[in-house]
Amino acid sequence: MTQATPSFETLRYAVDNGVATITLHRPDQLNAFTAQMMQDLIAAFDATDADDNVRAVIVTGSGRAFCAGADLSGGTSTFDYEKRYGASPDTAHRDGGGRVSLRIFRSLKPVIAAVNGAAVGVGVTMQLPMDIRLASTDARFGFVFARRGITPEAASSWFLSRVVGVSTALEWCYTGRVFSAQEALERGLVRSLHAPEDLLPAAQALAREIADNAAPVSVAISRQLIWRMAGASHPMEAHKLDSRAIQSRGRSADVKEGVSAFLEKRPAAFPDTVSQDLPDFFDWRGEPPFA
Amino acid sequence: MTQATPSFETLRYAVDNGVATITLHRPDQLNAFTAQMMQDLIAAFDATDADDNVRAVIVTGSGRAFCAGADLSGGTSTFDYEKRYGASPDTAHRDGGGRVSLRIFRSLKPVIAAVNGAAVGVGVTMQLPMDIRLASTDARFGFVFARRGITPEAASSWFLSRVVGVSTALEWCYTGRVFSAQEALERGLVRSLHAPEDLLPAAQALAREIADNAAPVSVAISRQLIWRMAGASHPMEAHKLDSRAIQSRGRSADVKEGVSAFLEKRPAAFPDTVSQDLPDFFDWRGEPPFA
Amino acid sequence: MTQATPSFETLRYAVDNGVATITLHRPDQLNAFTAQMMQDLIAAFDATDADDNVRAVIVTGSGRAFCAGADLSGGTSTFDYEKRYGASPDTAHRDGGGRVSLRIFRSLKPVIAAVNGAAVGVGVTMQLPMDIRLASTDARFGFVFARRGITPEAASSWFLSRVVGVSTALEWCYTGRVFSAQEALERGLVRSLHAPEDLLPAAQALAREIADNAAPVSVAISRQLIWRMAGASHPMEAHKLDSRAIQSRGRSADVKEGVSAFLEKRPAAFPDTVSQDLPDFFDWRGEPPFA
Repeated sequence: MTQATPSFETLRYAVDNGVATITLHRPDQLNAFTAQMMQDLIAAFDATDADDNVRAVIVTGSGRAFCAGADLSGGTSTFDYEKRYGASPDTAHRDGGGRVSLRIFRSLKPVIAAVNGAAVGVGVTMQLPMDIRLASTDARFGFVFARRGITPEAASSWFLSRVVGVSTALEWCYTGRVFSAQEALERGLVRSLHAPEDLLPAAQALAREIADNAAPVSVAISRQLIWRMAGASHPMEAHKLDSRAIQSRGRSADVKEGVSAFLEKRPAAFPDTVSQDLPDFFDWRGEPPFA
Repeated sequence: MTQATPSFETLRYAVDNGVATITLHRPDQLNAFTAQMMQDLIAAFDATDADDNVRAVIVTGSGRAFCAGADLSGGTSTFDYEKRYGASPDTAHRDGGGRVSLRIFRSLKPVIAAVNGAAVGVGVTMQLPMDIRLASTDARFGFVFARRGITPEAASSWFLSRVVGVSTALEWCYTGRVFSAQEALERGLVRSLHAPEDLLPAAQALAREIADNAAPVSVAISRQLIWRMAGASHPMEAHKLDSRAIQSRGRSADVKEGVSAFLEKRPAAFPDTVSQDLPDFFDWRGEPPFA
Repeated sequence: MTQATPSFETLRYAVDNGVATITLHRPDQLNAFTAQMMQDLIAAFDATDADDNVRAVIVTGSGRAFCAGADLSGGTSTFDYEKRYGASPDTAHRDGGGRVSLRIFRSLKPVIAAVNGAAVGVGVTMQLPMDIRLASTDARFGFVFARRGITPEAASSWFLSRVVGVSTALEWCYTGRVFSAQEALERGLVRSLHAPEDLLPAAQALAREIADNAAPVSVAISRQLIWRMAGASHPMEAHKLDSRAIQSRGRSADVKEGVSAFLEKRPAAFPDTVSQDLPDFFDWRGEPPFA
């Protein structure tokens, strides 16, 4: 379904020709992360999932930073959960960055980070469940937790080693050093570097390559298969799921259009939508309980 | 045991000096994958496992392609399982590419892909459970599923992120782009590139390095340990298995020969065979049930 | 707590300005691994964990080798467990290299390998649970097990694919080849190469970067989170653990000091210690049973 464009206190949100852009927007605070931003990000990904017009999502920052980490205006009680998020039974014990990461993990649309500047603390850990990271040559990164007396959050201990390996993950978390875009590229944290003015165009070109060619239901299933199987113990788990996926999609209107278009050497116009046609043999939107 | 050389409808199969070569052989159809090829590949890996003369396996394609993917001569019903594989209870719900992938996963012999040309769809996903991929500079690759309205199959959602990481796996599956051998090398899908005429000699040299130096039972156990532990949750699982493997192999005729040969600075001639001497403390050939 | 400096038969052990250096010390035998060295290494990591003065650990070798593998002076019965380790119910069936690897896996301090020379068999597999490997240009490596008629041990089937990927892990274990420091760098086994005289200074500089900047309790928790989550099936497992870690550390004396020091742009002096202040919501020192 097409949705009205939502609005958020800490984000800008726009959809243009199939590509949603979510912009962290507290530029005077270097887009520092707050409880409000947590809620806004979760709602923004609810919106991209619900809107069939959205075929890919770009996340970037407003002004000179991507996100400078947790807003430290609360001083030394910044990381006291009850003060920060309230003490309701549902949220008192859940890390806010992790709630965002797990929401992005469950996204049914591709997510591209366009890292325009400093990305520190939760400003970089929130990027790890995004699928592909492009960075400006001005970007810099830091897993600074140990320098503040806290620990890596946002489920980053699961994600980071899958992106850059255990050894680099540990080196960055042990030292807490702030490092360059070049080091991020060499160690595999980002896919490519771009001059600042070329960053968003590069992210948009990649989003276009997806939006113009791929069946949305195929993309949604691919995303969940690949992320979930990254932690599976045996390839039989993938075989069980993808057998049913192929069986389902192999009879769909999409495959008839996709194969016909290929044989006729023309672009495909896929009829199926994520909101209506995700097969129901698996809970694509689900996750294990927190408790 | 030594086996009579089997013959197949869609493959060529030859064993020369300890190295089996399996050649996908439907050159007029760019070696497109069919239900018959599925059955032939499974039987071919049964043959390499059963033949103690086979110390390593090379898989390549006949003519200018490696494998152009599923044979689309069935048109838009190509991916309808019941039409493609029949509707017996055993196979109706199992993806054919996945049956091949899981058979290769269970191989007791090293498997080297020599990718001579186009490898698209199941033509590339079937390579992922092979151990090492060498490619011709003429090779090209495509995870084109989303462009056809279907999804990644052959358990590739488990394998691909373990070869190239989650981010590249998603980029290739989202865009469905056909990409060059050079991109495959840079992202880690293939180990090395070779001029077309040098490809098979390079694969054979690597196979020789294994066949000439390594104890076959050690190789079989190493293969299963490493592939299976790639999905294990804790290194204690590896410690349990390799403690028993070392205990068993540490008393074998092979270790007496291997240590003696090393101390005497001569080549080893290992007496133990995969068909007779695989230790029985673990089901090396087994897999979890599909159902 | 500060500890008296322990002494060992097969190791040298020294603590200088927060950095412990463990030196394999059987130089006339190329630091070949024995049952005594196994016990000494386990005890040495017990010592580094127990000593709050130790903020990072360096492991290196005495003389021209790092460790030439199992001491083969026992000849062909070298790998017979009962002869090597004795037949007590506790140890008869446990691989000695694996006991060392799992002890290092549980370390609460960062572990940096400074690979000064040949590292073969258990001499390289014992490095895999170390966090970061630096190597001399003189170093060389070999997973030689299949050439001796045995199999990869020390839980290396779990670790190696997580460091260099399945494909390289298999190639090295299949061929058993001894390879150069340059190949180790290109395939990702080591982080960086150094001239022989620069190796220990480089390891010490990295250890200093950690010791001078990071809160020790944060480092200990980071290490266990990242290593353990490398095998976890779903990021929810990380979210459960790191939510509690942030909740606990977010109220600590360390975070008050860390945030204050950051806001005041001065170095932090973290008061909490690993021996006293590791939060008790998780068994950081535990492991699954062997049996």
